[in-house]
Amino acid sequence: MHSIPNLSTLQQAAQRIAPFIHRTPVLTCRGLDALSGARLFFKCENFQKVGAFKMRGATNAVLSLPEAEKQKGVATHSSGNHAQAVALAAKVNGIQAWIVMPETAPAVKKAAVLGYGAEVIMCKPTLQAREETLAQVVAQTGAHFIHPYNDYRVIAGQATASMELMEEVNELDVIMTPVGGGGLLSGTALAVHYLAPHISVIAGEPRGADDAWQSFTSGKLVPSLKPNTIADGLLTSLGEKTFGIIRQYVQDIIRVEEEEIKAAMRLVWERMKVIIEPSSAVPFAALLQQKQRFAGKKVGIIFSGGNVDLGKLPF
Amino acid sequence: MHSIPNLSTLQQAAQRIAPFIHRTPVLTCRGLDALSGARLFFKCENFQKVGAFKMRGATNAVLSLPEAEKQKGVATHSSGNHAQAVALAAKVNGIQAWIVMPETAPAVKKAAVLGYGAEVIMCKPTLQAREETLAQVVAQTGAHFIHPYNDYRVIAGQATASMELMEEVNELDVIMTPVGGGGLLSGTALAVHYLAPHISVIAGEPRGADDAWQSFTSGKLVPSLKPNTIADGLLTSLGEKTFGIIRQYVQDIIRVEEEEIKAAMRLVWERMKVIIEPSSAVPFAALLQQKQRFAGKKVGIIFSGGNVDLGKLPF
Repeated sequence: MHSIPNLSTLQQAAQRIAPFIHRTPVLTCRGLDALSGARLFFKCENFQKVGAFKMRGATNAVLSLPEAEKQKGVATHSSGNHAQAVALAAKVNGIQAWIVMPETAPAVKKAAVLGYGAEVIMCKPTLQAREETLAQVVAQTGAHFIHPYNDYRVIAGQATASMELMEEVNELDVIMTPVGGGGLLSGTALAVHYLAPHISVIAGEPRGADDAWQSFTSGKLVPSLKPNTIADGLLTSLGEKTFGIIRQYVQDIIRVEEEEIKAAMRLVWERMKVIIEPSSAVPFAALLQQKQRFAGKKVGIIFSGGNVDLGKLPF
Repeated sequence: MHSIPNLSTLQQAAQRIAPFIHRTPVLTCRGLDALSGARLFFKCENFQKVGAFKMRGATNAVLSLPEAEKQKGVATHSSGNHAQAVALAAKVNGIQAWIVMPETAPAVKKAAVLGYGAEVIMCKPTLQAREETLAQVVAQTGAHFIHPYNDYRVIAGQATASMELMEEVNELDVIMTPVGGGGLLSGTALAVHYLAPHISVIAGEPRGADDAWQSFTSGKLVPSLKPNTIADGLLTSLGEKTFGIIRQYVQDIIRVEEEEIKAAMRLVWERMKVIIEPSSAVPFAALLQQKQRFAGKKVGIIFSGGNVDLGKLPF
């Protein structure tokens, strides 16, 4: 797919992946409504398969491959949710997956990927080593590389979370997501642009990894250099494809402090009894930072994932 | 209410409290099904108002009071979920609540009760001090005492959780709950007895607080002496009313070790991304302890609550 997905492409993605993903619930919480002054609708991708929205994009990418190419298998490099998503999407399609992971990845994440039947190739924990190792794997196996976000099939898959949210909740004023590489944000922005362009799409981003904010405000793609944040799903740089969509269809990016992320995460855990990972708390933290702006509005917030190391909680 | 509630009484309770409680969702998890060998249906009272099923019984008790008596207000002694439940049930009915709490109760629990507009009376952390202080409060105010479990109106309220579960999931083989004072277990057993007596009702209980198991196996009410368990909602003794129902209508009580409770709790947090308190994990721990017994069965499990101190997690 070589051009920005159109509405029909997004709708086909939704139909294509439906049998392989959960239609996740939209939860509300009167306590958090009262506390924020807005009416909040949380789309719970933390309950998605593999515990994150990444399952949508990876599934769409795998299912979009021509049959001959699919049989050669798929590959990616990731230490996070995308690794598990590609591994599981491959497994349910009966094809092989090769996942390049840094030696520093937690054992539990490696075990999860192995549990889905993927082959794991360890490498040094640098982007260069990851890309080189991946290139070798692809050269040796003929596997198809699935980029975690800078891929229109992946972006179309991520768009389906907001499509479900808009089907379920009428007349939202705002939809908020976190932004890391921008797959979820750009997919959300596209879906809103086609289906309900009066809705504002606003992202939250950690100040310690604010390359998307810098890119958005400067109009030039700024890479993420030495990012430092508890929101470990948001360390990556935007890609050309995600940035192209974001600069055109996203209304704003709000930066938040680490303490704001932890506080928002704790509020969700305590009030909603729902486990979200730090990255998921970033858009809610952004809303709490700017309460007046969202007062009385109907706001959809996408909880991007729920994979946390219970041995390393920030509380 | 001076005799064991009949079916019509349970149905009236369900109707009476419906506007004041959440109809909580029933969640499933393929990962935990695979791991346990059973088909599990989790009734999520951790998402209930005040974060626990206690809201059901307290609400039914308050709403069942004759109008003149209601206006004098209600009182109870509790350091846990029942305190918040009585406070909130009183608040939504526009009446006063007095809650006797031990000095040792966490500040956050006291704050929650105050937040619902109740008056908090502190006392020494002994059962005797609690009962004496409560008696003084009742004498001074004329408030009506709502016992946390040994009260047929409370038991009828707790029964409604299983009634909803059975409405939603057909042909369950087993329903499991934790047992502390026995309000939830006896209510569940009654609902099952009237509506689907082929379903087995089985409780989980911490070995460190196994007074219900001792009472159940000996046929005599054995008090809970020096209970010691992480499941802080299950420290209390059965009452005469709850025991009378439990000995007649409950099939079994399974005792579990502390490590089993923690492991079951962690599994639910990690796999389901749902926060349950240790007491909630006890019946699931019992099922995991005796997998063969439940293999292939459709098992409903009531997650009794989700109020945990995030600063004191056992992980």
